[in-house]
Amino acid sequence: MSKTELRQRLQQVGEAMYHHKHPFHLQMHAGQLTRGQMQAWVLNRYYYQSRIPIKDAIILSKSEDVALRRAWRKRIIDHDGDTGVGGIEKWLQLAEAAGLDRNYVISTHAILPGVRYAVDAYIDLVTNSTLLEAVSSSLTELFAGQLIALRMDALAKHYPWLQNGLAYFHGRLTQAPEDAAFAFDYAAEHADTPHLQSLVVRSLERKCALLWAQLDALQYCYVEPGSLPPQPDVFRPEE
Amino acid sequence: MSKTELRQRLQQVGEAMYHHKHPFHLQMHAGQLTRGQMQAWVLNRYYYQSRIPIKDAIILSKSEDVALRRAWRKRIIDHDGDTGVGGIEKWLQLAEAAGLDRNYVISTHAILPGVRYAVDAYIDLVTNSTLLEAVSSSLTELFAGQLIALRMDALAKHYPWLQNGLAYFHGRLTQAPEDAAFAFDYAAEHADTPHLQSLVVRSLERKCALLWAQLDALQYCYVEPGSLPPQPDVFRPEE
Repeated sequence: MSKTELRQRLQQVGEAMYHHKHPFHLQMHAGQLTRGQMQAWVLNRYYYQSRIPIKDAIILSKSEDVALRRAWRKRIIDHDGDTGVGGIEKWLQLAEAAGLDRNYVISTHAILPGVRYAVDAYIDLVTNSTLLEAVSSSLTELFAGQLIALRMDALAKHYPWLQNGLAYFHGRLTQAPEDAAFAFDYAAEHADTPHLQSLVVRSLERKCALLWAQLDALQYCYVEPGSLPPQPDVFRPEE
Repeated sequence: MSKTELRQRLQQVGEAMYHHKHPFHLQMHAGQLTRGQMQAWVLNRYYYQSRIPIKDAIILSKSEDVALRRAWRKRIIDHDGDTGVGGIEKWLQLAEAAGLDRNYVISTHAILPGVRYAVDAYIDLVTNSTLLEAVSSSLTELFAGQLIALRMDALAKHYPWLQNGLAYFHGRLTQAPEDAAFAFDYAAEHADTPHLQSLVVRSLERKCALLWAQLDALQYCYVEPGSLPPQPDVFRPEE
């Protein structure tokens, strides 16, 4: 594949597998989720947010290239904060806007096991794969900008009580496309055989699957629980 | 042990085991090493330098604490550089001042196997230990400031041809004590049982041993080679 063809192939993966089409997101963006369901989403997604700098530090530790490390460390700084507030803190602001207690969220005690396993699978993927695959797993950011723009409109419209917690998404609107462009250029340059290109595509697919699985867990527990009771200890909305 | 007693215990380890007393360093500081032996030291020590940000990224990836990650990432920035030149680049300037080709040094093809194994053992130690032990392994920096000050005088006096390459040591004169103070406070706070304190001490001992082993390899090959020929591929001074 040429660089353009690789980009198109990744785009196809995104269209088919990225979580913008997950029913939980479709309902969120249509304004169909309750306050409790939105709280469950914010609470559970915090676990993913909290693992991002850990994931990026693992990628840093896999690189012998000063230039890659210098570029990649931006992600850690974006999330942990510098002179300004970082992404993790901004997510906690979203949680507080949603009416959740900050320390309850930070403890991660009440998150769904299915969410935890999916996020831990991301850490495992990055830990146990090559640097190229680890970098490629971040290529979901190619699709994040559009989803975040859509989400910001939907949250403002349907869940106005969250309005003081949207700084995270403002930040990601510019960060995600910058990060994605760097990661794609890196992947395109280093995947110089059909086999390596297939690993790039596969890594993106695996990342899409683990984002999707997090929403599956939320959907099953909080939207369509059927006859199963929630596992003990997990968050239960007041209603 | 109280915090003061722990500090004293670590000081004892440093006095007994830190590489400031290694014969290779004693000869270096007395001006007894040849240009070729100094080149061998600079070349081999580059491998250690090149692994420092990797080691620090592993430590970052082990921490769930934003505050620790924010403090610790300074080390990666110090070594990889930011707007200014980083420690790895400064070491390459030292190598060029010593008359070595930059790309030959970066390739690390000519370093001694014994140096490589010792440095790789450091990465293994940090990878496979707890965060407390990994942080504690950096406590050799408690003793680095004094050694670096001594070395800068000795290099200026005995090896004036290195004078354009000393920026690395200037930087470390302030960085090492800052880093050591943070790491010691972290270790003292988190090692709150005798068992954990013994792990802190043991981790410092292991780090001292692997610094020492690097100089042993240099001493055996380049100062007191005895009857053994150097392994193929390793650096041989012109003389």
